[in-house]
Amino acid sequence: MEMPAPDAAILAKKPRLVAALRAVLGPGGVIEDGVELRAYECDGLAAYRCPPLCAVLPRSTAEVAAVMRICHSEGVPVVPRGSGTSLSGGALPTADAVLLGIARMNRVLETDYQNRFIRVEAGRTNLSVTGAVESQGFFYAPDPSSQLACAIAGNIAMNSGGAHCLKYGVTTNNLLGVTMVMADGEVVEIGGAHLDAGGLDLLGLVCGSEGQLGVVTEATLRILATPEGARPVLIGYDSAEVAGACVSDIIKSGILPVAIEYMDRLVIQAAEAHVHADYPDCEALLIIEVEGSEAEIADQLGRIIEIARRHDPVEIRESGSPAESEKIWQGRKTAFGAMGQINDYMCLDGTIPVNRLPEVLKRIGEMGDAVGLQVGNVFHAGDGNMHPLILYDANRPGDLEKTEALGADILRLCVEVGGCLTGEHGVGVEKREIMTAQYGADDLEIQMQVKDVFDPDWVLNPAKVFPLDVSAGRRG
Amino acid sequence: MEMPAPDAAILAKKPRLVAALRAVLGPGGVIEDGVELRAYECDGLAAYRCPPLCAVLPRSTAEVAAVMRICHSEGVPVVPRGSGTSLSGGALPTADAVLLGIARMNRVLETDYQNRFIRVEAGRTNLSVTGAVESQGFFYAPDPSSQLACAIAGNIAMNSGGAHCLKYGVTTNNLLGVTMVMADGEVVEIGGAHLDAGGLDLLGLVCGSEGQLGVVTEATLRILATPEGARPVLIGYDSAEVAGACVSDIIKSGILPVAIEYMDRLVIQAAEAHVHADYPDCEALLIIEVEGSEAEIADQLGRIIEIARRHDPVEIRESGSPAESEKIWQGRKTAFGAMGQINDYMCLDGTIPVNRLPEVLKRIGEMGDAVGLQVGNVFHAGDGNMHPLILYDANRPGDLEKTEALGADILRLCVEVGGCLTGEHGVGVEKREIMTAQYGADDLEIQMQVKDVFDPDWVLNPAKVFPLDVSAGRRG
Repeated sequence: MEMPAPDAAILAKKPRLVAALRAVLGPGGVIEDGVELRAYECDGLAAYRCPPLCAVLPRSTAEVAAVMRICHSEGVPVVPRGSGTSLSGGALPTADAVLLGIARMNRVLETDYQNRFIRVEAGRTNLSVTGAVESQGFFYAPDPSSQLACAIAGNIAMNSGGAHCLKYGVTTNNLLGVTMVMADGEVVEIGGAHLDAGGLDLLGLVCGSEGQLGVVTEATLRILATPEGARPVLIGYDSAEVAGACVSDIIKSGILPVAIEYMDRLVIQAAEAHVHADYPDCEALLIIEVEGSEAEIADQLGRIIEIARRHDPVEIRESGSPAESEKIWQGRKTAFGAMGQINDYMCLDGTIPVNRLPEVLKRIGEMGDAVGLQVGNVFHAGDGNMHPLILYDANRPGDLEKTEALGADILRLCVEVGGCLTGEHGVGVEKREIMTAQYGADDLEIQMQVKDVFDPDWVLNPAKVFPLDVSAGRRG
Repeated sequence: MEMPAPDAAILAKKPRLVAALRAVLGPGGVIEDGVELRAYECDGLAAYRCPPLCAVLPRSTAEVAAVMRICHSEGVPVVPRGSGTSLSGGALPTADAVLLGIARMNRVLETDYQNRFIRVEAGRTNLSVTGAVESQGFFYAPDPSSQLACAIAGNIAMNSGGAHCLKYGVTTNNLLGVTMVMADGEVVEIGGAHLDAGGLDLLGLVCGSEGQLGVVTEATLRILATPEGARPVLIGYDSAEVAGACVSDIIKSGILPVAIEYMDRLVIQAAEAHVHADYPDCEALLIIEVEGSEAEIADQLGRIIEIARRHDPVEIRESGSPAESEKIWQGRKTAFGAMGQINDYMCLDGTIPVNRLPEVLKRIGEMGDAVGLQVGNVFHAGDGNMHPLILYDANRPGDLEKTEALGADILRLCVEVGGCLTGEHGVGVEKREIMTAQYGADDLEIQMQVKDVFDPDWVLNPAKVFPLDVSAGRRG
């Protein structure tokens, strides 16, 4: 992954910059030591690493604003970071940037059950948002796999989804407002605990903007009533075509499960070896979960099973107890880890129209075979979000590059069949160069002009989202 | 309502412009005759009228692009119009602008039940979107009161909601993609029938942008499975405080009805006189509707009625048949018309936090008394969207101005208690000058800079959304 050369003039400013940052954050708020900085040199896309110039850990919006003012006046880039779980390198530092971590800003500021919202500092982890309201019977719907660790700030940056987004939508459908610090340190409020305001919808624009427009420090989030219960059914098929047809029929019937997960044979076998989930040995496994009252659950699962039976399944297993539900989910939830037991892997994140699944799986298999790489497939089948996992050997020279090339080809295939480059992981550095597969030069130019409005000097989260050559004229 | 003086140089170009437009649209596609133009001189905010320079009625995206190229090269402003039902003057022409009506573009381009979307030309009416998919058991959720007439293009421009938006969200939650013609005639695709794409979310920005960024000609919309059934309950209370407390308790309990409608005494009496809906004579009437299977409906209504009883209601009447349901809804659905039988009225559209309802109703009553105007209140109580109706006499000199001043004060009150200026009707010309109550100069400047990116010459839907003095430097 090519990154721009660090700016020597900025590197030379480090002592003055660190002194200025220490003056506002105190000694514990600034990290410049090489060993300690290692904690911030990468995110969840660990193949790429670069320690930042220094890292700062502010405790308030006012401190974030002070940091931004200092960096702005010194012309120093800033890389915002939530919990650092990005799978696309969204929080990867550059050597001449200040890494701004907001993990210390994790307080609940307000809960309002009458108006169904919670306001939190954006460093708060996703799961602990639900933790703050579950005693009152509420939850926060978006649930990325990393929800134990990932921060709301990162969820907003990447417009994160999760297993439940088929029913409840992604972050942008659950975000009501933000407090954001602009590149020059100005603090703005966008949206709030009310419906759609007048004027241009900057909140929709900020959500998913990957730290390109400002640093989100507080968020107002929609909370929902916790459903009475949930139950999965496991369904096995001997062909991807048939499993795809079953998913299509369920969705066409109008049933809206909270999750429809798809695993192919390679992933099924890895999960089985890893946690002994008692999965059938078949070509395609579906895990379909519904939520609601006991009557609703029984009704919906009954209709799903009736549809599934028409397609001649290898196995149908409706969970009969919480323990069985957990067992059914355990294989899926540990699937990535299980694949990691076999080999290193790269996890992709494209989307496709649901009905193109069988042909896309076939093409992915052929493309992998052609370059000698195995690809396992986990798929949020309800909403068309694929996660192909390319297995490779990090210690074999050239394997990573071959994997990256295959990954880019698979994502181009997603766009070709009418999908897009990223469902929930974002562009980051990972997909920066293939944005041209989805967007023409004019499209990218408009997006960059919008960034110009918010960040005229292009100091926020540098060298991400836009292809380097396309953004070259704008970056310092 | 002050409007900028028309540009004499543009008026002088009319013959050449009309000839150029006729060359691409044919004689039936351009209207320049004074009498025929009357049909386009106003929208749903009929207090303001101005015939445009001419009106064009293109039949395809290519024709819209041709119109935009001609107007761009001549430097002529363009006012886009769907069905002209805007209540905020969003489609009000200026005398030097071409009115671009897309009502002829109303075809269904694609339906896809497997991927749950429909693609339509944006002149299609809201209700006929559902009409195109209901035989397959699907519907399009946003349902503004004007849904028989209003166009999807206008719904997107205003981010329209409707009675069901408590459960299903507003337009932005149901919009997947658009085809948009830019100010210079370039045609762009934004979003599509897939999840969130990479890069900045321009789709969220376009939704609710009131024709300031481009002309939307096609839209891809999410469709949902039609619920098995729906049933309302009518609940009367003798005080706004108690009705408000009941609504709060229902929402806190986690039940999510599809609609919670509130009417005050003045509106109840008007509705009763108009359609004899058999409403109780009380201070506050709630109509609460739930959807689902018969078991779900019974369960949810049972819990709602249990909560309602605790607050000592004047009346609780659960519908026992479709005919009774229709009767309960009829008074609400004709409430605006019923108020119109009493007098002329201005319909406002602010939002407030739900729990501030009683005090806001009290303040509105006092403010009306102070200037001698009666105000009736209809309220989407579930999501805090108020529609105060100020009664006035259009034939009494000065009454309209007094009404506008009271309306502005009421909307400022909404902002003051933590709400906003508009829930679903948009800013248009109506609320243009009070945008400063919600946004500071910096906020407006950022929004205008974003418009600069899309419409650098400020020719799209002129003199709307931004206060005239704030946008003065940008408008020609």
